[in-house]
Formats: sequence, C-alpha cells, structure tokens
Amino acid sequence: MYAVDRLYEAVARKGPVCVGLDTAPEYLPPAARRSGVQGILSYNLALVDGLLDSAACFKVQIAYYEALGLEGLAVYAKTLRFIRDKGGLVIGDIKRGDIADTASRYARAHFDGEFEADFVTLSPYMGMDSLEPWLDYAERKAKGAFVLVKTSNKGARDFQRCDLKAGGTVARAVGDRLSALARSYTGKHGYGAFGAVMGCTDIVEDAAMREAWQNLFFLIPGYGAQGGTAADAARLLRRGNGGVVNASRSLLTAWSASGGAPEEPDIVYAVEAARLAALSMRDALTAASGGSGSP
Amino acid sequence: MYAVDRLYEAVARKGPVCVGLDTAPEYLPPAARRSGVQGILSYNLALVDGLLDSAACFKVQIAYYEALGLEGLAVYAKTLRFIRDKGGLVIGDIKRGDIADTASRYARAHFDGEFEADFVTLSPYMGMDSLEPWLDYAERKAKGAFVLVKTSNKGARDFQRCDLKAGGTVARAVGDRLSALARSYTGKHGYGAFGAVMGCTDIVEDAAMREAWQNLFFLIPGYGAQGGTAADAARLLRRGNGGVVNASRSLLTAWSASGGAPEEPDIVYAVEAARLAALSMRDALTAASGGSGSP
Repeated sequence: MYAVDRLYEAVARKGPVCVGLDTAPEYLPPAARRSGVQGILSYNLALVDGLLDSAACFKVQIAYYEALGLEGLAVYAKTLRFIRDKGGLVIGDIKRGDIADTASRYARAHFDGEFEADFVTLSPYMGMDSLEPWLDYAERKAKGAFVLVKTSNKGARDFQRCDLKAGGTVARAVGDRLSALARSYTGKHGYGAFGAVMGCTDIVEDAAMREAWQNLFFLIPGYGAQGGTAADAARLLRRGNGGVVNASRSLLTAWSASGGAPEEPDIVYAVEAARLAALSMRDALTAASGGSGSP
Repeated sequence: MYAVDRLYEAVARKGPVCVGLDTAPEYLPPAARRSGVQGILSYNLALVDGLLDSAACFKVQIAYYEALGLEGLAVYAKTLRFIRDKGGLVIGDIKRGDIADTASRYARAHFDGEFEADFVTLSPYMGMDSLEPWLDYAERKAKGAFVLVKTSNKGARDFQRCDLKAGGTVARAVGDRLSALARSYTGKHGYGAFGAVMGCTDIVEDAAMREAWQNLFFLIPGYGAQGGTAADAARLLRRGNGGVVNASRSLLTAWSASGGAPEEPDIVYAVEAARLAALSMRDALTAASGGSGSP
C-alpha cells in the first residue's frame, strides 16, 4: 500500500480535484487579512474542513510559506498536520532535488519530520539516484512523490522539450525512466509510488505521454487561473482517474469573483465560494472525462 | 556591483576555498553534541569566526537544517545572519527551481527575508524563465546565484550528460544559456551575476567547459570527502580565481582525523582543525593553479 493507492481511491470517491493551498496573503478574503500570518492558517484550516469531501487531496506550495520566514513555515507545518489528522492526503510541493546524504536529509524533513507530507514534488535534474533516498522512505512509510516531467511555462522549451540524439525529448526521457522505475514500486491499482508532474502542453504530446506511461499517476497543474481547461486536463487522466488536477488561485480567490458577495467577505463566505468552485471544476473534469471517476 | 564581484575579490585575497556548513549533528566534536540543535549553531558560529580569514565564502546546505524542522531552520537563519554581519559572503545551497509567482516567493524568502543569503543555488529544469524573479532581486540587491549545470554523481549521466540532437549535452545547453544570460548581467571583473554549479567530471569536458564559459563563475563541489582532488578542481578555475571550491565534511570533521586529539575534542579544537585543513586545501589549490589566486 502506497500513498498513490489511497489517492487513487480518493479520486474514485471524490473526483480528481487537488486544492492548491498557495495561500498568498492577498488571496485571503478581506476580513481575514487583519490577522497577518495567522490569518493564512485560519483560512487554510477552514478550506481543508470545507473541501475535504469535494477534493481528492491538497497541495501546499512551500514557497508561499518560506517567503514568510519561520512564522510562515510554522503555518506550513500546521496545515500539513491538520490535513493528515483529518484523514486527508497532502502533497508538499517542494520541488527539491539533491543527491546522496543531502537528499536523505530532505527526505527526513518532508517524510518524517515536522513537515511530513504524504507526497512531495521532486526535480529530476541531478538524475535518478537523487530519488533513491525518497524511495527508501516511500517503502518504509508508504509515501509517494511526483517528479517534474513537463511543465507548461514558456521556459519548458529551453531544456525539457529539447530533442535528444537518441530520440524523444528530455521530458520524454525523464518520464520513461520514471515509468520503468514504477514497475518496481507498483501499488495495488497499477500505479507506481512515484508519479509525474505533467503540465498540459499540446493535444498530441499529452495524449502520447498518457498512453506511454499508463503506470504513472499524474499531478496536473495549471487549471483555472493559469489557463488550462477541463478538456486539456482530462486528456492527461485515464477515465477520470490516474491523476489529480490542481487549482489554487481560482479556488482561493473565488470569493472575489462571485456575484452578490457581502461588502467585506469573510472566511466562511470565501470557503463556501471555494467549495462551489471546486465542485464545478470537478463536474467539468468528470464531464470532459466522459462520465464517472471510477474506471 | 554584484555579489560575484565581492566573491571574486575575496578569492583574490583569501583563495578559493568555500566552507560548506552542512553541519550534521554527527559532524560535531563530541563535547558539543550534548547541546542538541543549539550545538550546531555554536559550532557554525565558531567555524565562521575561525575561518573567515582563510575562506572566500561559506555555503550552507539548507537540507541539513530542514531535516531538523523549525528549530533547525532557525539555526540556518541565524548562521546566515552571522556570516553577513561579519562581512562574509554566504551561499544558501537551496537548489530551488520553480516558476512565475512561486519563484518570486522563493526569491523573497532567500534574498530578502529571514533566510537572506548573498547567493543561492538553483535548478534549471523548468527553464530560463524560472531564473527571472531571482535576477530581479539580483539587480535590486546585488545578489547572485549558481545554477546547476553538471554534477559528479552517477545520476548525472541520466539527463545532464544526454546528447542533444542539436549537438552537445543537456548540461552544455544549460551552461550556454547561462553564459549568454551573463552577458546582460556582467560584473566589474567580467563574470556574470549568475554562475554555474560544476562538479569535476572528466579532464577533457571540464577543460572545454571552463574555456567555453569564461564569463561564468563556478561553484565547484565534491572536494575532499567526495573524492575530488586539487588538480581536478583547479582545472575549473581560471588562474586560481573564477570559482570557489567547496569542502564540507572533510573540514567539519577534521577534528576526528588529526593525530594527538584530546580525549573529547571540543569546539575550539575542532575549529582549529578545520582551519588548518582549509589552509592546507587552499595551498593545494593554489599550487595546482600554478601560483597566486590573483589573475
């Protein structure tokens, strides 16, 4: 049993929405801003309570908390702890990537210590051995990871999409290695303990990669505020499962978009707006996947 | 004036040694271990005081501190602050790599906030746009960065050393882009604000890359405990400058190697052992570079 098995089951039950808690101070509803960093914690905890039943998992982007120093990182730690205590699944979006002893220290921090998550995101640049210490923890504690394969920013062309002499792109080589690795760490629903971060790029490439790596669970960023549509994201799923689709800003700031808002929206109002936005996102993804989230 | 100008001048004055404060609890001299995490801080501060005159800069690997949670990160922050207050230069070895708003948050954390460093290390996988928010800060606050180009772990073969269809390897493409970027951010000694992390790999490749990227300042890891020799590292320097050579474990644990140690080595003894080891490393690098550290 890996974390990916629990995630697969959560998607089957609740759909593929991943709620991104990239909780910038300016995303808070106005009434919550007066509490400073503690307002971020209050909003996060209320979002978790309000969306636990409508989202497969949460993803917490650590950069937003690191930017606020130790006080911010305390909020990061408390948010992760709260999600896990509620029986939810959480991805620590940390994109760490280092080798040997250093990687072991990071793995200890994020799979075992104060910042314990169920999944982390990792960067592959230093090579497959940089994943090993994380895999050790994955085995021992049923953890998982999503490794950067392809992203949808313009810089993705710089290295990820370069063609290799041996055929395929760099991103393709990374995904191939991950898919091969997944065969040694396969969970009970056919997905490897370590999956891939896969931005929506183009129809042909996305379809080809989904087809090629059937044993990789995908973390799909970029929905909503970043421009991805339900059809784009659904192309990277397999019959509505096999991946989670992250939205952050569009959910966290849904309070600002909805009509009929009170003069000074508070956390209760903002969480309800986020919940409705997540449900509508889930419906759009389910429709684009051609029906139910179960295979 | 960029941080790289100050670093160049520090190397000319004090030689190219970079002291890596990867201060694992087990690297502490026995007498300091009883104080737990605070013992790490005490050892770090004593090392900074003792080695400030013999080292060009310090590099602090954040993973060792993240592994100890918030208390560890407080020690990280205090160590960086102490180095900067003493007029020393510090590299936050964080290998972050993310895009857009997320990258801006990381940049704020490590160039402006509680974890402020003079330099950071970055990962290039997401592309050149992932560097932009850091460059903004570099301009505004005279900061610098070292971007991962090639590493000497076995996994470096997996992606970095893959041949591209267009010629050269992935690492070569990353370095070429950095060298081009450096032309728009050149300091007064001819080096770009952003340099490269360059592990010693092989004689021919190292010499070719040093020749190709004369405007990139190198951070060269892997000396000492990781097997790199003075001759290997000197090949990536230019007349003894243009790079710093990092040693961590071999300096921090020099207390355990030297003959005639007291029964229970303390911090004073360990710092003196580290200082002598750093001086001997500096001499070896200077000799291998064919003389003085000034061009």
